[in-house]
Amino acid sequence: MTRVSPVSSIQERLYPDLPCFGCGHANEGGLKLRSHPAPDGCVTAEFLPWPEHDNGLGYLNGGIICTVLDCHSAAAVMQTADTRGWHPLGAAKLSYVTAGLDVRYLRPSPLREAVELRAEVREASEAEMTVEVSLWWDGKPRAEATALWKRWRPRP
Amino acid sequence: MTRVSPVSSIQERLYPDLPCFGCGHANEGGLKLRSHPAPDGCVTAEFLPWPEHDNGLGYLNGGIICTVLDCHSAAAVMQTADTRGWHPLGAAKLSYVTAGLDVRYLRPSPLREAVELRAEVREASEAEMTVEVSLWWDGKPRAEATALWKRWRPRP
Repeated sequence: MTRVSPVSSIQERLYPDLPCFGCGHANEGGLKLRSHPAPDGCVTAEFLPWPEHDNGLGYLNGGIICTVLDCHSAAAVMQTADTRGWHPLGAAKLSYVTAGLDVRYLRPSPLREAVELRAEVREASEAEMTVEVSLWWDGKPRAEATALWKRWRPRP
Repeated sequence: MTRVSPVSSIQERLYPDLPCFGCGHANEGGLKLRSHPAPDGCVTAEFLPWPEHDNGLGYLNGGIICTVLDCHSAAAVMQTADTRGWHPLGAAKLSYVTAGLDVRYLRPSPLREAVELRAEVREASEAEMTVEVSLWWDGKPRAEATALWKRWRPRP
């Protein structure tokens, strides 16, 4: 058992050994996203881009935006799954995987300042979950996505 | 002027100085995607993931998949724009920016083998373009996306 403090992120609490590029705290070369439950029922996170996360025009790269939206929506999904007892099956490390991510880029996002992420599970059954997730800076949404997650059933 | 050989990629031919994380050859910490026109009218590329591009389950990370789908669709868009004379406006380095990326994950993609990318511009006007772009391995599509690109008009 990993000892965790009450302020640990969802990632460090539920899947501390995951090597995921976006949110795995066991991936030395990854983004190590930290997401937390907020009082309003959403899940929030802060993300500070790396200098190389440029979109070519001096703003945050759209692919990296997808990466943090996907992984932040994961935190909301895994927290919901954990609460409801929908635990990983067989040898799986996660209980759900992303089936789709529909991203709308609304405004440029800064490259050199921390941005905020917000996620809310809109529909949840054991078979699948839908999450609305967004990236904010300076009080305005910069990108929004709908993430569809499906129960991960590893092949025997 | 940068001297280029006839086999240079679309990125190295049209925007060799771009610092984009996914496809900028001036970004030392980036993926440096290289895309080429294919005889069938599509644009193709090969991408070899880095070890840290794990999705946490031993496959290619979904955010990195988004990054290469987005940047590979860019190559198809910029090539079309260049052919039609829709050049970057003002001080812009690119003539178009991504407005949306709708990704469907179909099957796991390998982490330790090169994958193929295919992009085709389906609709093109000077105002916007729509691209179908996909990631393949072992003869099967692993992820597909529809990318919407809009003319980039920098504010004065």
